[in-house]
Amino acid sequence: MREFLLALAVVATVQVRAQAQTIHSPNRQLALQFALSPAGEPTYQLRYGSKPVVLPSRLAVLLQDQPGFDQGFTVAKVDSSQHDDTWTPVWGEVKRVRNHYRELAVTLQQAAAQNRQLVLRFRLFDDGLGFRYEFPEQGSLKYFTVSDEHTEFNLPANHKAFWIPGDYDSNEYAYSTTRLSAVNTTPIAPIQERAAPQRVQTPLMLKSDDGLYVNIHEAALVNYPAMMLNVNPQTFSLRSQLVPGATGAKAYLQAPEHTPWRTIVVADNAPAILASKLILNLNEPSKIADPGWIQPQKFVGVWWEMHVNKASWNYSDASNLKLATTDWAHLRPNGRHGANTANVKRYIDFAAKNGLQSVLVEGWNVGWEDWAGNWKEEVFDFVTPYPDFDVDELQRYAAARHVKLIMHHETSGSVTNYERRMDAAYRFMKAHGYDAAKTGYVGRIIPRGEHHDGQWMVNHYVHVADEMARNRLMVDMHESVRPTGLHRTYPNWLANEAARGNEFNAWSSGNPPEHETILPFTRLMGGPMDYTPGIFQIKLEGWNPGANQGRQVHTTLAKQLALYVTMYSPLQMAADLPEAYEQHPDAFQFIKDVAVDWDDTRILAAEPGDYLTIARKAKGKDEWYLGAITDEQARQQPVRLDFLTPGIRYVATIYADGKGADWEKNPTAYQIRRVLVDSKAKLMLQLAAGGGAAISFQKATPEQLKQLKN
Amino acid sequence: MREFLLALAVVATVQVRAQAQTIHSPNRQLALQFALSPAGEPTYQLRYGSKPVVLPSRLAVLLQDQPGFDQGFTVAKVDSSQHDDTWTPVWGEVKRVRNHYRELAVTLQQAAAQNRQLVLRFRLFDDGLGFRYEFPEQGSLKYFTVSDEHTEFNLPANHKAFWIPGDYDSNEYAYSTTRLSAVNTTPIAPIQERAAPQRVQTPLMLKSDDGLYVNIHEAALVNYPAMMLNVNPQTFSLRSQLVPGATGAKAYLQAPEHTPWRTIVVADNAPAILASKLILNLNEPSKIADPGWIQPQKFVGVWWEMHVNKASWNYSDASNLKLATTDWAHLRPNGRHGANTANVKRYIDFAAKNGLQSVLVEGWNVGWEDWAGNWKEEVFDFVTPYPDFDVDELQRYAAARHVKLIMHHETSGSVTNYERRMDAAYRFMKAHGYDAAKTGYVGRIIPRGEHHDGQWMVNHYVHVADEMARNRLMVDMHESVRPTGLHRTYPNWLANEAARGNEFNAWSSGNPPEHETILPFTRLMGGPMDYTPGIFQIKLEGWNPGANQGRQVHTTLAKQLALYVTMYSPLQMAADLPEAYEQHPDAFQFIKDVAVDWDDTRILAAEPGDYLTIARKAKGKDEWYLGAITDEQARQQPVRLDFLTPGIRYVATIYADGKGADWEKNPTAYQIRRVLVDSKAKLMLQLAAGGGAAISFQKATPEQLKQLKN
Repeated sequence: MREFLLALAVVATVQVRAQAQTIHSPNRQLALQFALSPAGEPTYQLRYGSKPVVLPSRLAVLLQDQPGFDQGFTVAKVDSSQHDDTWTPVWGEVKRVRNHYRELAVTLQQAAAQNRQLVLRFRLFDDGLGFRYEFPEQGSLKYFTVSDEHTEFNLPANHKAFWIPGDYDSNEYAYSTTRLSAVNTTPIAPIQERAAPQRVQTPLMLKSDDGLYVNIHEAALVNYPAMMLNVNPQTFSLRSQLVPGATGAKAYLQAPEHTPWRTIVVADNAPAILASKLILNLNEPSKIADPGWIQPQKFVGVWWEMHVNKASWNYSDASNLKLATTDWAHLRPNGRHGANTANVKRYIDFAAKNGLQSVLVEGWNVGWEDWAGNWKEEVFDFVTPYPDFDVDELQRYAAARHVKLIMHHETSGSVTNYERRMDAAYRFMKAHGYDAAKTGYVGRIIPRGEHHDGQWMVNHYVHVADEMARNRLMVDMHESVRPTGLHRTYPNWLANEAARGNEFNAWSSGNPPEHETILPFTRLMGGPMDYTPGIFQIKLEGWNPGANQGRQVHTTLAKQLALYVTMYSPLQMAADLPEAYEQHPDAFQFIKDVAVDWDDTRILAAEPGDYLTIARKAKGKDEWYLGAITDEQARQQPVRLDFLTPGIRYVATIYADGKGADWEKNPTAYQIRRVLVDSKAKLMLQLAAGGGAAISFQKATPEQLKQLKN
Repeated sequence: MREFLLALAVVATVQVRAQAQTIHSPNRQLALQFALSPAGEPTYQLRYGSKPVVLPSRLAVLLQDQPGFDQGFTVAKVDSSQHDDTWTPVWGEVKRVRNHYRELAVTLQQAAAQNRQLVLRFRLFDDGLGFRYEFPEQGSLKYFTVSDEHTEFNLPANHKAFWIPGDYDSNEYAYSTTRLSAVNTTPIAPIQERAAPQRVQTPLMLKSDDGLYVNIHEAALVNYPAMMLNVNPQTFSLRSQLVPGATGAKAYLQAPEHTPWRTIVVADNAPAILASKLILNLNEPSKIADPGWIQPQKFVGVWWEMHVNKASWNYSDASNLKLATTDWAHLRPNGRHGANTANVKRYIDFAAKNGLQSVLVEGWNVGWEDWAGNWKEEVFDFVTPYPDFDVDELQRYAAARHVKLIMHHETSGSVTNYERRMDAAYRFMKAHGYDAAKTGYVGRIIPRGEHHDGQWMVNHYVHVADEMARNRLMVDMHESVRPTGLHRTYPNWLANEAARGNEFNAWSSGNPPEHETILPFTRLMGGPMDYTPGIFQIKLEGWNPGANQGRQVHTTLAKQLALYVTMYSPLQMAADLPEAYEQHPDAFQFIKDVAVDWDDTRILAAEPGDYLTIARKAKGKDEWYLGAITDEQARQQPVRLDFLTPGIRYVATIYADGKGADWEKNPTAYQIRRVLVDSKAKLMLQLAAGGGAAISFQKATPEQLKQLKN
């Protein structure tokens, strides 16, 4: 990748009366046109070569108790510029990221509204468009309330869409793949009932019949609600729907302020969508000056055993407890509590033995007896362990084995309670050697009336990332709003869940085999996901037949390995139980080996909903890892190894589906073979239905060269 | 007062079918009857001798998504008992408080609702009734939501009422005195527009034509919204109106739980209403085991000079600032900032010289440039001083003079912001020697949609009191919900504003002269008020003629002194500026002398809206202080001194209205005289229109005996 030490910026400012402005992407493939309608309504359109991506579409922000930013505009000023530089992420899929775009900033003025000004800023990259609304500080606009944003994305045709319902509180749905005309969230059993029939979440992945891949999302979601999209099934127009706050208003703002970037990633091939760094480029640089303490890592956890009904989060089977008045030390234990000292030590031992950095423990703190579903404010205090969880002893035990414990802060959606206890909770973490926390937001939000994806909660997540950073703590957020690239700005914000994770396989109809081929095109466009791969005991009746009847992970075992590469995250869980891994030490070797931070990434093959093959080069090493997955269709995946360093011979350890493997009938059939390869080699991977393959490429030792030649 | 070391409790439990139960107060003056209607609706009525106080009135709590606790009841169990003991408050109006009542607890059962049970608990004292709803833990009731409470107070006639509008967010109104039939809040310029035409606040003071004084309020308001009252002007029925939360629901509860006590204080004379300790008795004992650090006190403050436009809270005249991004150190000072180091030192010197314990400083911390009215979440951080306020130097300076600084925490209604910064704020206080804080809640509440008087905020105030107690800090809350006796439970919660204070005289049409004769019968029934008396510069043009034209305090100077006795609080401000006091050192002597904690209190004369005379004995001393005030009518107030210890001669220093004194025309005419008195003496106090008198009684020294005889 080319590198520029200094940004190039050529700025041209013109006082114009012109009503239309066009810019092209650096490679001139994309063209963005801004125009005002005769009524002074701002519009934009986007073309990819000769193909329309977005037809002329209106841009409007409506305000409470005053005229909207929607019409009656004239153009006061047009600035255009170009920008090209390269920056280094603290961690990521590639070592360096190029940020290369043309910018158009149009200052609009409303004569009928005290000459109020609005700036529309467009950044056009080779891989797509970002634009946002900017509200300059001005006499006639200081504090204001956004009642709605009507950003349109008028699509030229009835594209195929990969969508989940536009639920204000959850992204935990399986994807539907339909034409835009058929979007209907009603028949989808909703987690909540808040999803309107044609409202969908972003990132929304689209594919046109004329071969364009289009992804619509947003970047740098701060101090604003998440954007959902209302689909018009007749006209194929999408319109932004902001998540409301408790009063119904969408955002309380103070000028100068701006919206997040609205993003449209476009390409004529699916891999290019996954390779896009547009969303990261539209985020602010890291706020953490000295990020040496931030560590991408793999971890195990006292977690899956609760999901498969082998253990419980709660210590007792009492119910209807109150945090402040319960005598937690003298509850009658139920004998199934997972987070007990001895069991945690077992995980610490396992992590230490296998070179995994850390151990997550859920259910360690009091409150789990009736934690969810009650819209209750005082559930957890984040500092009081259950009587069988010895904080000091585990601190000592883990430290002696160079393993870190990962704190768990489940808020049960009671965010006011978490915020008022946060200081004490973080001090507790520091005092006991924790350097990372997994947070959770299961249930309806308190402040009551607020939503997971509204402005207040968006600010909360950023506040957590910020406070954790101040305390040199890393964080992994579950049930949060879906990410928008803020991990560039807060690299201690390692991952989010914010989608339907592997856990759904444990206790629901599960995730269909195509699920993991869609997530990278949707949820992962915004940032890493803590998907919790690596389940080896695919059929879950093995753990507790009565409770888990018919439940299973909807992949083969080999595909579980491939996910460590296809599902990018700097924080990867080896999600299964130690005893599951101990039954398959040969397969577990891949999880031990695979990197979590990368110098390079190559999307070798991809089609949303069908298949995905990615190779990645481990950070600072001449080592590559490859993951290939398929949906419910078995398929052959050819792989050219031209990404390897020419002239070097590598040992490729191939973890593949075994003979007769099938996600449903025979998921644990796998085979492992070692071959010598170089950059000229090709491999043909046989992927079973719901299957996959994982490969590690390590430079061959002289001994291996000799041995494998035979 | 009699004293019982052990509580007497005689409990009688009977399984009854009886549908009506009657108990009498210990002196048999009051009779409470509980009955079920034919439809199984709970009702109660209250009589004072032969006079009805409350006619048969329904009791009902309605629930969301399930049948209400309103009808279909049978009586499952009736418990009656009596109770008599005496307890010692940490501070108060009297040294010991007798708690003497008969109790009736009726357990009701609803056959049609899974045999759900509800307990109605009545406590009948000689001075009134308290009752509450209790929700026992039961299989069919764990977590539940109160959608409404319909507690009726059906009054027998068209009483005279002293009322303020039932605003969910403010008590800062002047009182209206009308018949119940004429209650109409519409023409009263409301601070907010949330007051329904017939909705009024409690404490509601009533007077019947047949000579009964009735006060309706509540005790121990915890985890529940404040109760307001809807007045039916035709039937004279009052019905409870709970303050809603953001979703419209009133309270989110978990059994076992109970409502606050609904209180009806009754007497045939006005002084007995003021002497009632019923509300205190219905509160829980102190939660503070070792209250030695809690200090009733008098204070001055950098405060009134802002109200009279002599100084500003804000350091600069910039506006539209943002807490996180403003460079506070380099704002351009406006030259009027009150909380500057030199000025604070002046107040410290003044306090030290005059034996006042502490100095409040408002405007010390950054954020005041545009703090109010913007519904903005991030206004203050509670730890960053303005550049001209030297925290360390003032800590040293005050400590050297044995003066304490009182912290100020204005939240501007952004309570989420305060709660998340509370830990740091209290650590800051401890580190800098503060042991008390004044909090403020000006503006609309965040979480948005919540009200000052709703369940969420009620819990917040208690949380603040609790957290302050854990940190050994005292607190004085402004713009909070009106108190309900919780200072018994949290004696570090010294006072509240929660009414229209003296400050309104500085910048509004002011408080009418009758105001301070009504407050003890209304707002103060629930607890002490930080009314900020002691204004000597009555006409405010003296400070800044341009800004304060026509503004004045609506009393005479002598009445300002009397308020230190009539307006009970363990925290009393000498609210005026040092330079105002330095002009009247003789009158200021009373403020220096007057106690703030008492062994005894005698209500010598009282009529709400007209006049009030109270004498109090200083804690641990044979020293009495008397305050007498009148409304806009001049009057003579005879006072018998039989409260003084017989056989002892006291010097009575009488601070009285001077010749020709009048609150409007000649407010600062006062005279001070000293006379020798004993318990057989009588005094005749001449109170000017809007005037008053204050007297200190101190044991005469031999020298004084000699001197004053002449």
